[in-house]
Amino acid sequence: MALSLGELAERFGCELKGDPKTLVHAVGTLAGGEGVIGFVASTAYRDELRATRLAAVIVDPRLAGDAPVPALVSRNPHATFARVAALLHPVTVASPGVHPSAVVDPSALVDPSAHVGPLAVVEAGAQIGPRVVVGPHSLVGRDARLAEDVRLVARVTVCDRSVIGARTILHPGVVVGSDGFGNAREGGAWIKVPQVGAVRIGADVEVGANTTIDRGALDDTVIEDGVRLDNQIQVAHNVRIGAHTAIAACTGIAGSTRIGQRCMIGGGTGIGGQLSICDDVVVTGFGMITKSIDKPGMYSNVIPAEEVRQWRRIVGRLKRIESLATRISALEAAAGVADTSTQEEGND
Amino acid sequence: MALSLGELAERFGCELKGDPKTLVHAVGTLAGGEGVIGFVASTAYRDELRATRLAAVIVDPRLAGDAPVPALVSRNPHATFARVAALLHPVTVASPGVHPSAVVDPSALVDPSAHVGPLAVVEAGAQIGPRVVVGPHSLVGRDARLAEDVRLVARVTVCDRSVIGARTILHPGVVVGSDGFGNAREGGAWIKVPQVGAVRIGADVEVGANTTIDRGALDDTVIEDGVRLDNQIQVAHNVRIGAHTAIAACTGIAGSTRIGQRCMIGGGTGIGGQLSICDDVVVTGFGMITKSIDKPGMYSNVIPAEEVRQWRRIVGRLKRIESLATRISALEAAAGVADTSTQEEGND
Amino acid sequence: MALSLGELAERFGCELKGDPKTLVHAVGTLAGGEGVIGFVASTAYRDELRATRLAAVIVDPRLAGDAPVPALVSRNPHATFARVAALLHPVTVASPGVHPSAVVDPSALVDPSAHVGPLAVVEAGAQIGPRVVVGPHSLVGRDARLAEDVRLVARVTVCDRSVIGARTILHPGVVVGSDGFGNAREGGAWIKVPQVGAVRIGADVEVGANTTIDRGALDDTVIEDGVRLDNQIQVAHNVRIGAHTAIAACTGIAGSTRIGQRCMIGGGTGIGGQLSICDDVVVTGFGMITKSIDKPGMYSNVIPAEEVRQWRRIVGRLKRIESLATRISALEAAAGVADTSTQEEGND
Repeated sequence: MALSLGELAERFGCELKGDPKTLVHAVGTLAGGEGVIGFVASTAYRDELRATRLAAVIVDPRLAGDAPVPALVSRNPHATFARVAALLHPVTVASPGVHPSAVVDPSALVDPSAHVGPLAVVEAGAQIGPRVVVGPHSLVGRDARLAEDVRLVARVTVCDRSVIGARTILHPGVVVGSDGFGNAREGGAWIKVPQVGAVRIGADVEVGANTTIDRGALDDTVIEDGVRLDNQIQVAHNVRIGAHTAIAACTGIAGSTRIGQRCMIGGGTGIGGQLSICDDVVVTGFGMITKSIDKPGMYSNVIPAEEVRQWRRIVGRLKRIESLATRISALEAAAGVADTSTQEEGND
Repeated sequence: MALSLGELAERFGCELKGDPKTLVHAVGTLAGGEGVIGFVASTAYRDELRATRLAAVIVDPRLAGDAPVPALVSRNPHATFARVAALLHPVTVASPGVHPSAVVDPSALVDPSAHVGPLAVVEAGAQIGPRVVVGPHSLVGRDARLAEDVRLVARVTVCDRSVIGARTILHPGVVVGSDGFGNAREGGAWIKVPQVGAVRIGADVEVGANTTIDRGALDDTVIEDGVRLDNQIQVAHNVRIGAHTAIAACTGIAGSTRIGQRCMIGGGTGIGGQLSICDDVVVTGFGMITKSIDKPGMYSNVIPAEEVRQWRRIVGRLKRIESLATRISALEAAAGVADTSTQEEGND
Repeated sequence: MALSLGELAERFGCELKGDPKTLVHAVGTLAGGEGVIGFVASTAYRDELRATRLAAVIVDPRLAGDAPVPALVSRNPHATFARVAALLHPVTVASPGVHPSAVVDPSALVDPSAHVGPLAVVEAGAQIGPRVVVGPHSLVGRDARLAEDVRLVARVTVCDRSVIGARTILHPGVVVGSDGFGNAREGGAWIKVPQVGAVRIGADVEVGANTTIDRGALDDTVIEDGVRLDNQIQVAHNVRIGAHTAIAACTGIAGSTRIGQRCMIGGGTGIGGQLSICDDVVVTGFGMITKSIDKPGMYSNVIPAEEVRQWRRIVGRLKRIESLATRISALEAAAGVADTSTQEEGND
């Protein structure tokens, strides 16, 4: 498919610089060429922009003068780029109907416009809405409900009674509604605590490959509208993730924790159980959140790696940090100098 | 199904307070209502208990006087609750037999009481015991053996020669018996070292979604009876996990490490290779275990996150901690004060 | 299969000590017995070697005199052992042809010598080369290409347009080519950025269970020849991993990062986005790489766990490390002693 810049400018409300009849058929990086449209959002890429041989670019107003080729000027070039890309690279349309190799329980309700792919399984009582795609090797469990336009890309397992909102996309390997980690201890052994809650996922959510979302122990685990979960994230039972929060890969969230709206959690983060994180919190990658956060802001505990010998000296000294304090106290006593640190800092 | 409190009290050996004919049909939180039974194990929830409108509660003896509704008094309310929940919310019984869409090798032995679900694969020589459930999209590899009442919930991959003990539950996405990470280096490149061991999992084990357990390089990887593994855990080749140990999500255990019995390992923990962790060790979440532990107790290295500017000051100072020691030494020399820290702390 | 030591010595160019007619049929540890061959590469195992009852051993020249049984002497015992093991324990040969339960699109090209296993799916336009094994429950997406001798062990999902090089092995649960985490923010919500790149994996690569490799946003994600990825690794969009680099389990690599050749990355490591790691870098387990590395060497930031009360004292002091510096400055002022730390260390 090829579209003209004029069409794109009108459709997405951009100012157009250059020939409106310029045709583009694909998106690409600034290094791309003929028929390709790219984007630049930051002035840090001004030089690359000036050198580009793309057919066209989407740029921030501050960069409009630097584009050597026709340009769409947008106040949010990344968002405009996303929309243009979706138009130029549409998802392959799946044909309506149930593939003959799929196994669909007669009591399931499958909308005639939905696609149930090869070797998928739809269990008793499941409800599959209009235009839903149940990709190959996917499972829709008993009494699960998928709203319109949900897409299970491939090999997605949606366990019984899970509810998935409209337009939500689940990537390969995702497991929704597996049992939470509920165990009662008795005499040094464990008794399984049945997990009778479910999982409810809102609309316009996207969940990355091999991410797992456990069903609730009693109440439900809830993912609100517009949430973005990257790959290999673990969401434990009864967690609630607020609308439009984005969480990067390899993060784990322990049971019953509530995360607010519009948070951004860096990859590899661990968030303890039964915590409450307010709206608009940012956590840098590799975070360890062990206490509730009630103030928006950015939180971190990353310690950048060092050359190993240097690092071992630092750790050796850290492990003996108490001795530094002891030595300072002795010097203070000898010199008759008062401890100058504040009381709140709690020097003993 | 509805059961009377009187029946439950008798069955689980609890003292009963209130009307034995009180009927309950489901478990729930203290916020639940009609026909629902909940539990309270900690006096921290006394106020919620006093306000509950549940049909009945299971309580610790210390809380027996606080329940405004009929109560089962138990010395281990959580364990009693687990048993009541299992009774009120039984697992859906799978019908015996092989689904016509499953692919079962003629040389496999499938007990007639077992269920092999839609689109499952059972390979040559596999043995499937009484009442086993092989859920949809699951694979039982060549010569693998599943003892009675094993449950592969859905999309579980059990590779060849793995052995799974009675009543063990494997959740969706679990991989048992994939090749360990065995590589010999030669001339800057890697040669694969065949992994000829297997995986043996004991009885009454539960393994969470997307957890992976590698087969042994030479000897077997072993998970003993009653172990609990949460989601997205990685168990490398030749690890041995002792009976009744529980490990929370996103933990990784490197090769040939032995973990004792009744340990509790917090989520997101990394445990190095070829270590030995004794019985009854507790590791708090996000732990990094790099040395063997031969003394029961609780171990930690969590550093709670801070507001980012404050954290960066701390890390900057940590990276220069050696300079603090140097400055103290200079002050000690100038003041003629001896280093007061102990020899063992190894100040230079 | 049984082979004589004489045959093995000749085949792998080893010096032979003892009877060339000694037969071995399996590999094992030093604790093994009749018919079993083991290996010892390190003098740390000299005592175990002297006590072994194996049929034969593969040893380093420094240990040739210590073997109480016939021995193959090799300058790289581990590599020789890997080759002997592959010979004695060959992978089960899959029969050529497409299993009747597999679903293969008529437009896919499947080499007649390839094996497409039970319940596998091969989509339109896919190309499957000679002797490839597509294991049970695996998916080869639209226009994906698998070169000769590729092995998808079982339940591997290769998304559309992915390219996999010769002899590469993908273990169960692997996802190749899922969408990267691309989101544009607009008005507090997220717009999906279509991911139009692909994944290219080289020859002789091995990827462990449940590892995920995302497709590129615009350009491709690239794994070069001979790379080794362990289980549950996350490779984000547009990452490039250099030839013969090995990465241990549970590591996450954020978007657009380039890792050089022959690197060795310990398990549980997090590597930030848009970084460049040069060739021959070693990172110890649990690393946090937040800056580019342009110098080969070993890097670390592991902090070994401590008994919890001791650890909490250390962390408490770390969080107040600034107060130690303040107290030292006060003592220096009182004593008229100059700050002895270097300017570069940046004491304020």
